[in-house]
Amino acid sequence: MFMFFLIFSIERHRNQFGLNRSNQDIELTTIYIITPTYARANQIPEITRLAQTLMHVPNIHWLVVEDWSDKNPMIETILKKRGVQHTYLVGPRPPNQLKYPYAVNCHHAAFKWIRENAKSGVIFMADDDNVFDLRVFEQMRSTKNVSVWPVGGMFREELSSPVVKNGKVIDFLDGFRRQRKFALDWAAFAVSVQHFLSIPGATDPYRNGYEEDLFLQNLRFGLDDLEPKGNNCTEILAWHTRTTSKDYPSLNNMKKEPDYENTNLLKLYASMLTTARNKV
Amino acid sequence: MFMFFLIFSIERHRNQFGLNRSNQDIELTTIYIITPTYARANQIPEITRLAQTLMHVPNIHWLVVEDWSDKNPMIETILKKRGVQHTYLVGPRPPNQLKYPYAVNCHHAAFKWIRENAKSGVIFMADDDNVFDLRVFEQMRSTKNVSVWPVGGMFREELSSPVVKNGKVIDFLDGFRRQRKFALDWAAFAVSVQHFLSIPGATDPYRNGYEEDLFLQNLRFGLDDLEPKGNNCTEILAWHTRTTSKDYPSLNNMKKEPDYENTNLLKLYASMLTTARNKV
Repeated sequence: MFMFFLIFSIERHRNQFGLNRSNQDIELTTIYIITPTYARANQIPEITRLAQTLMHVPNIHWLVVEDWSDKNPMIETILKKRGVQHTYLVGPRPPNQLKYPYAVNCHHAAFKWIRENAKSGVIFMADDDNVFDLRVFEQMRSTKNVSVWPVGGMFREELSSPVVKNGKVIDFLDGFRRQRKFALDWAAFAVSVQHFLSIPGATDPYRNGYEEDLFLQNLRFGLDDLEPKGNNCTEILAWHTRTTSKDYPSLNNMKKEPDYENTNLLKLYASMLTTARNKV
Repeated sequence: MFMFFLIFSIERHRNQFGLNRSNQDIELTTIYIITPTYARANQIPEITRLAQTLMHVPNIHWLVVEDWSDKNPMIETILKKRGVQHTYLVGPRPPNQLKYPYAVNCHHAAFKWIRENAKSGVIFMADDDNVFDLRVFEQMRSTKNVSVWPVGGMFREELSSPVVKNGKVIDFLDGFRRQRKFALDWAAFAVSVQHFLSIPGATDPYRNGYEEDLFLQNLRFGLDDLEPKGNNCTEILAWHTRTTSKDYPSLNNMKKEPDYENTNLLKLYASMLTTARNKV
């Protein structure tokens, strides 16, 4: 009876989280989630929120990469407290690349780590301001070469999607189509680690708007390699969301406030300074 | 030995989520979380993301209130699938109140439900685009009358906070101070259900910018009733974030796209139509 209760407790606990965890967690394919990040007012809440999403996902290794020469101690604290397996890296842009998106160099630092440390699994690029339905992680886990799905929140259409016919990707619907072979956002695909490792040096180049396309071309994929997920690309499980925000807290405004001695404000200001540490 | 393994499994499972769940879940104070929401491009991702945060929090009852006369079937699906205990209500604004924030009428619908259904617990207003550190839920659970904490992402300072001296709230630091007695955002406080029920009719009035202040005044609180959380208001555990977005997906643009027969696009468009259902 006691044992029955224990088994019941485990099942109940599992169901509470709506997950299909199995006792074979250890055999699940590892997902390497790459998240570029940079100091700004929203950095702490957005990393907090993404960490709280990833806490639900078993067998991941979260590579958080700071676009700066040193790490943010507040980010390190969040990563440790949330209990998500992770590695926190830095990937500062070289001075001659500042006109390119911060993500590219962060990806390069993560790719270097993966080439040195991973043997198998799946690679997924997850920006810290995006939204991910938990099901997208479960679906990308079966990626053989490269899996794809629709992304909400893109362009005027609020949507970007592979066009799927008879189970095959035949084209792309995207607000920035141009001459791109793969008109996809980073949030729209995951790549097999084995395939990635099989092509030494494959990476995303510094070319605004063409990073994803050229990354997949460098990996020598054809349209036929794309594995549609999200019920044959009919469901949206990832959104490219953007938060409005000034880049950094306006500490100058804070300083104009009356000076409360022996109050909580000093410690609060100190924590805001950590977020703005490099840029004020 | 087998029993030892089972106990070990439960503990491991618990620790993976970084929670301090106890076997006395059933004795935990219930938190009634009120989330006003309305049809827009970001509605589905933001309710999805908040649901995935609340999945971590035991003993809550989530009151999601739609600012419209009928419910959104996609929201109902999300709420059911995530396994969070919830009630989905509607709280449409009367035609003569359209110049006021949608949240007020949604609050009123939720307050009515609480007065009819709850006996004890804590009330917390959680907008669907905000960010909540899981610790804020644990801390508000011990609310006697009304507990308060700092909120990030507010105004130029990126911060709004009670000013705390010797463990007591003596004032407020907020970008919109005016003559408000309680210069607080909804994300900054939680109120005891017992106290709320003890003052029949107490609610937030239609008065732009003064809803929180007058709600707390209607509950007859004084500064002395405020219980500072977040390590005496030195830590930020909630953020008032805002996403950039058009109100609704531009389905007109979609229709201009080439018409792909027998592809996934028809079903995808149909799901976007559900989100924009009332406003296109």
